[in-house]
Amino acid sequence: MKREILLTPGPVNIPNELWRYAASMHHRTDEFRAIVQDAIGSLQRLLATNAHVYLLTSSGTGAMEAAAANFVSDDELVLVVSSGKFGDRWGEILSAQGKHFELMRLPADERIDVDSVAAEIDSGKYGSAMLTHVESSTGTLFPLQELKSKVSNDEVLFIVDSIASIGVEELEMDSLGLDVVVGCSQKALASPAGVSFIAASGRALKKASGGKKRAYYFDLTRYTDEFKVGDTPFTPAVQTFCLMHHNLKALERIGWDNTRERHRAIASEFVRIAEGMGFEELSRNPSSAVQALRLPRRLEGKGFAAAVREGTGYVVADGQGALKGKIMRTGYLGLVGGEAVLDFVEKLARLMATLGYDTEPAIGNEARERFSFYKPLLSRLA
Amino acid sequence: MKREILLTPGPVNIPNELWRYAASMHHRTDEFRAIVQDAIGSLQRLLATNAHVYLLTSSGTGAMEAAAANFVSDDELVLVVSSGKFGDRWGEILSAQGKHFELMRLPADERIDVDSVAAEIDSGKYGSAMLTHVESSTGTLFPLQELKSKVSNDEVLFIVDSIASIGVEELEMDSLGLDVVVGCSQKALASPAGVSFIAASGRALKKASGGKKRAYYFDLTRYTDEFKVGDTPFTPAVQTFCLMHHNLKALERIGWDNTRERHRAIASEFVRIAEGMGFEELSRNPSSAVQALRLPRRLEGKGFAAAVREGTGYVVADGQGALKGKIMRTGYLGLVGGEAVLDFVEKLARLMATLGYDTEPAIGNEARERFSFYKPLLSRLA
Repeated sequence: MKREILLTPGPVNIPNELWRYAASMHHRTDEFRAIVQDAIGSLQRLLATNAHVYLLTSSGTGAMEAAAANFVSDDELVLVVSSGKFGDRWGEILSAQGKHFELMRLPADERIDVDSVAAEIDSGKYGSAMLTHVESSTGTLFPLQELKSKVSNDEVLFIVDSIASIGVEELEMDSLGLDVVVGCSQKALASPAGVSFIAASGRALKKASGGKKRAYYFDLTRYTDEFKVGDTPFTPAVQTFCLMHHNLKALERIGWDNTRERHRAIASEFVRIAEGMGFEELSRNPSSAVQALRLPRRLEGKGFAAAVREGTGYVVADGQGALKGKIMRTGYLGLVGGEAVLDFVEKLARLMATLGYDTEPAIGNEARERFSFYKPLLSRLA
Repeated sequence: MKREILLTPGPVNIPNELWRYAASMHHRTDEFRAIVQDAIGSLQRLLATNAHVYLLTSSGTGAMEAAAANFVSDDELVLVVSSGKFGDRWGEILSAQGKHFELMRLPADERIDVDSVAAEIDSGKYGSAMLTHVESSTGTLFPLQELKSKVSNDEVLFIVDSIASIGVEELEMDSLGLDVVVGCSQKALASPAGVSFIAASGRALKKASGGKKRAYYFDLTRYTDEFKVGDTPFTPAVQTFCLMHHNLKALERIGWDNTRERHRAIASEFVRIAEGMGFEELSRNPSSAVQALRLPRRLEGKGFAAAVREGTGYVVADGQGALKGKIMRTGYLGLVGGEAVLDFVEKLARLMATLGYDTEPAIGNEARERFSFYKPLLSRLA
């Protein structure tokens, strides 16, 4: 198999030397219980929260479904604030569960009108608001802190998808007053895909206890008692749990502030260079977790993401839905260091020239030096 | 960390050298789609079926929930046939989904009365029957073939949990006339935990298309169109998918008949020796997938499974619920060869002597030779 490097917004590269931390242990042992409890402690520190944290064996969408099943009741109206495919997914999940919502769609290429969102939440119509911290289909960062400062209705439960943002964008759950936050293993936690988590405030848990759930695997009450002692109700993805636990501890040693700063620096440097090459950032509220870049118009609709993969050996993501063929999405989560980004940029320029779009990436010596400072994160985890 | 060997009925040991097959690839690529389609082909051959196979990122319980959500309607009555904790789980899942069932509980320590089960299914009350091929809490193998030969009502949908039996006990889905079979990665498929699957007959799929599901992540209609081209609707546990795919291909090369024969031989030899040491097989319909052995009465209730782990370095499972402290459960899925089983038996005897139960395992030269024939399966996968 050809060795390719993922520059996508997840899943991330897991180098072979990291797998030795994916221990095969039995889950009904004190050793595994300690790992579960310790991983939960790391996630609580990362989210600056005392919330109850549940680890699930599923993709992030499973955690979203569990959040909707456990914390949204049949008789309330939910405001779904969406700037793309993953925001819309909150609505699809609520629909599937027969729950009621209104969708507030924010255009990806305009600045988010936080006042309008705050006013809608304050209208008194809604029991919960579901938001997406980083919408990875468009690279949009939702300004949660600004929104929270403008909302006065404190009865509304805030349920936030942090799948793409966790570990990259700051998210202090308790001081922000968020009730439910969901995330998963295979993005900035630099771990294999297949484990997700939910952090739920005391207020959310109190609301949940009265609800009809119609779920079994995702019924969090099954997890509550078990998790007090680090047990899971069903066989967990033990090996992925163990590796994610190892990475959480290593990332804490590196420091989340340092990790976030690293993502910000690589992303902003890359975007600056890419803009010099004719790309344009799609979102007016960009995040450093994922870069959604409009292609130079001449390259639209020509299978550019596939050409990049074929021509450079780096895997980037195409747009989804209406954005298919119009954007390229990248992410620098995990394996990637500055040298690889420089190498990618140079190969990208050569590829674009062969496609008839001649460009010269403007990489100054200063940028080169800044990039070379950033070693692959995962080499520091092994 | 102390290196222990799992002799439990899952999860299984994954040696470090196997992890290199857990490729980090992007899931929206033709390479990954080919892996999904090829794994589905292997599972169809293993189950001797043309059924539609879905791969999910969840534990086996998630696949059970998906089966109940997609193939049981709100207005039918289901017969749940249970000989223990995992059979009962079918009922718990149906309850959570607000569906209707009757539980037929079979005592673990009596021979299964197949005629009674057949008569109940033939009563005309039920739209579906949910069964457990191997009940791993008691080591019981349900004689599906015998049951099917006695049932005359062919309107009843057969939904079977094959989580513990897949790859160990024969299960030819189409010739048996089963409609839905669920299984998962971390037992005899010798793979990390976290991936499950559902095989569904055309008849089951036809029934599903009319049903209310109230599920999103486990709504199989979301998987149908995607799976035609090898796509998954949500980010799958890519690395576990890739390793499981590798193992499926390797096990096919070894041959499922050979793998089953190996499990049968090791299990029956081990049980014979254990019976000579004072253990007694709990089930009257035992399976070679898991051995549930009653402890000699003097060792009951003394934390025997924990003592085995501490004293021998091999991890076995305790009983669950009312059987806690009364039985020891073992499995030989994956890493374990005959030499390890012999070593375990000898250490077990020494441990029992220190606990005041002196016993001499009767291992003849002939048994030694037969055991030594069986090398660890996983070494043949790497």
